[in-house]
Amino acid sequence: MASSKPEIAFIGLGAMGFGMATHLVKQGYKVTGFDVWQPTLDRFVAAGGLAASTPAEAAKGKDYCVCMVATAQQAQDVLLDRKDAAVPALPKGAAVLLCSTVPCSYVQALGKELRDDLLLVDAPVSGGAGRAADGTLSIMTGASDAAIEKSRFLLQEMSDPAKLYIVAGGVGAGSNMKMVHQVLAANQILATSEALGFAAHLGLDLQKTADTVIGSQGKSWMFEHRSPRALTPDFQPIASAVTIILKDTGIITAEARKAGFPTLMTSAAEQVYFAGLGRGYGADDDSSLVRLYWEGKGKVPVVAAAGGKEKTEEEKLALVVGLLKGIHLCSAGECIAFAARLGLDLDQVFELCVNAAGGSAMLEAAGPEMMSLVKATGAAAAGAEAGASLEKIVSELQEAVDEAQRIKAPVFLGSQALNLTRLAMAHRPKTAPAATAGAVVKVWGS
Amino acid sequence: MASSKPEIAFIGLGAMGFGMATHLVKQGYKVTGFDVWQPTLDRFVAAGGLAASTPAEAAKGKDYCVCMVATAQQAQDVLLDRKDAAVPALPKGAAVLLCSTVPCSYVQALGKELRDDLLLVDAPVSGGAGRAADGTLSIMTGASDAAIEKSRFLLQEMSDPAKLYIVAGGVGAGSNMKMVHQVLAANQILATSEALGFAAHLGLDLQKTADTVIGSQGKSWMFEHRSPRALTPDFQPIASAVTIILKDTGIITAEARKAGFPTLMTSAAEQVYFAGLGRGYGADDDSSLVRLYWEGKGKVPVVAAAGGKEKTEEEKLALVVGLLKGIHLCSAGECIAFAARLGLDLDQVFELCVNAAGGSAMLEAAGPEMMSLVKATGAAAAGAEAGASLEKIVSELQEAVDEAQRIKAPVFLGSQALNLTRLAMAHRPKTAPAATAGAVVKVWGS
Repeated sequence: MASSKPEIAFIGLGAMGFGMATHLVKQGYKVTGFDVWQPTLDRFVAAGGLAASTPAEAAKGKDYCVCMVATAQQAQDVLLDRKDAAVPALPKGAAVLLCSTVPCSYVQALGKELRDDLLLVDAPVSGGAGRAADGTLSIMTGASDAAIEKSRFLLQEMSDPAKLYIVAGGVGAGSNMKMVHQVLAANQILATSEALGFAAHLGLDLQKTADTVIGSQGKSWMFEHRSPRALTPDFQPIASAVTIILKDTGIITAEARKAGFPTLMTSAAEQVYFAGLGRGYGADDDSSLVRLYWEGKGKVPVVAAAGGKEKTEEEKLALVVGLLKGIHLCSAGECIAFAARLGLDLDQVFELCVNAAGGSAMLEAAGPEMMSLVKATGAAAAGAEAGASLEKIVSELQEAVDEAQRIKAPVFLGSQALNLTRLAMAHRPKTAPAATAGAVVKVWGS
Repeated sequence: MASSKPEIAFIGLGAMGFGMATHLVKQGYKVTGFDVWQPTLDRFVAAGGLAASTPAEAAKGKDYCVCMVATAQQAQDVLLDRKDAAVPALPKGAAVLLCSTVPCSYVQALGKELRDDLLLVDAPVSGGAGRAADGTLSIMTGASDAAIEKSRFLLQEMSDPAKLYIVAGGVGAGSNMKMVHQVLAANQILATSEALGFAAHLGLDLQKTADTVIGSQGKSWMFEHRSPRALTPDFQPIASAVTIILKDTGIITAEARKAGFPTLMTSAAEQVYFAGLGRGYGADDDSSLVRLYWEGKGKVPVVAAAGGKEKTEEEKLALVVGLLKGIHLCSAGECIAFAARLGLDLDQVFELCVNAAGGSAMLEAAGPEMMSLVKATGAAAAGAEAGASLEKIVSELQEAVDEAQRIKAPVFLGSQALNLTRLAMAHRPKTAPAATAGAVVKVWGS
């Protein structure tokens, strides 16, 4: 009994892909999946999907082929390079939806390599495995009008109605949008480990710390989603491995190097991810990097607090919040400055990011001012007086970094963020009014 | 049989103090030493010194008291706070030479706490245990004219004739001078580990790498002195522990935070030192931090080189040199910008640093241009055309960071340095001529 809905080929049934593909099955699509890992394919069949033993078999005769593998190398392999690749098996006029996070340069090169009769949709996603399975992802789509027209219903099935973003600029623009979003993700995933490691050094109860952060201006989507796993004894269940965010981080810093754009926050995060990889944590959940931060706890000699006065629990909790606020402010600055450099529509970037996995209270608070500062050409930026005082954020962050130094807790991102806010203040014109939080965006140049 | 030379009390016979004190013994001084570690005292007696069982006993009746303990806390304890402290035992008019590396603010506070009749000499040193034992240290002295007059002969005994620096500004100025010198030390000690760890990931022979660096523009005093120990199987002999440079690093970043000065390089280094401390490496030689860098070698999956073309040995060696040049350029920039912020005499800073443990080929090459850029007020800086092209250094550094990313080798300092050179280029006036290497100093503001 044929469904009235088109048949879909789905390549790559990992944490994200499995959720997306099974959601389509639930919506009544006949979905033929392929994955290199047989147990995943068996699970997919149990969930109502069909299994193919090669990408070509999955793709054969399908008008739509969704690709959700982990890397550009894998995408190139399953779509084109292996003998039983998917694309040669696709019929004339089929649409290829590449949902993996890949460099803009890769998806553009792929577009040139595809047969002229095929339609490529650059469609990276954000939102995590839960939203993938619910069909409520954020999707950033760059493609020709014809390709979008053909595949819009399918993008709509997989995304939240309010979170399907058509990004101007065609193939590659969606990937650029995802990339600047991942500036927030890369920093905020690690910031969760850094904040909880710092809290451990401070002797705080970690569950109470997490609750406090989530109720404060230090909150982020990533903190809410990572902190529960960071607090399980074995960092389970593995929702996203260190290697996954490291791959995205590498796209950001490599593309930024090509553009001559300084990614001071993301590069600092990347080095810590490399250190985690070196320790053998690559396949573990990314929340497990808290281990890099707390391992010295209780083992390093600490000098007495000034005046011998230990901080209260409330003061210590405020330090953790201050640390995160500073980090999130600077990751927001780096995201928006990079988006501006790439010529993306900043309002769309902001709307996407606050509603996706990169969201944070600081982005919400300071983002609009950052955008107006980046757009402003000479004239005073609108809304520059509206934001929180930069001095206040800096002073809270400085208190956290001071204390981290005293107790010898590493705070890679917090220390970097503090120096960047210092740079922002050092480079302000002497005649400028007191800086508001968003002014930090000026550090990255224009 | 009394010597015609004055008797000296010497508190703190660690790696540096032991060499300094035994050198004075060899020069014919009667030196009474104190140390908390009895075996060291026994060795000192065997070398011709006298041993005291308390600081007070060492100091009693001596006109000169040299203090060479590890920290400000220890200095405060042995000089003033413990029951049998040294200072109360000193006769009227005696000179206290504090040779430890301490914050400017500490030595100034100590000056206020001493009896009015005593003369305090702020006299931190640099040069390592070998030069301590030879009496050829670099010494940075800040003190009143009377204190310098009284103690000049003793400072001369311990220093190279050309390396005794009288720093204008009185007590505290010597410590500030030492602090800006340690910006170079803190970065260049860690850069040695980073470069050798990178070389290990690249599969290079490490001895050949060390020889190549020492014959290149990537050389530094620290690399020459640390690399041999980094290449012994157990990082022996321990010449200077991780905790020692971490203590100096902490002085730099804490004083910089008070001054609102961004220490982007030193802060990045400090976080790695904290990570080493967390791993339990604190008491080991600082060259042993190479372990933090090479542990992932051979264990992490690496993507193929572009075009499948592996680099030649010569190309790989050039990457290591390029990495160090970039790091040393930026540590030089941070040193000179911080010195300018503190109001130090830049020519003296430069002369001191190139001839002490902070020296590097890049400091020698770019330092003069950096100084003229920092001093210049609006007018084009003299000598701005003389230096090496910033673009060339950046492009070599970028090649190194690109390759490190491909092979997943951490390069904390190299990645930071690359971003800082990018910032320097981003903030240049559009009409400026092509930037020379020293232009990076502008990153730190003015």
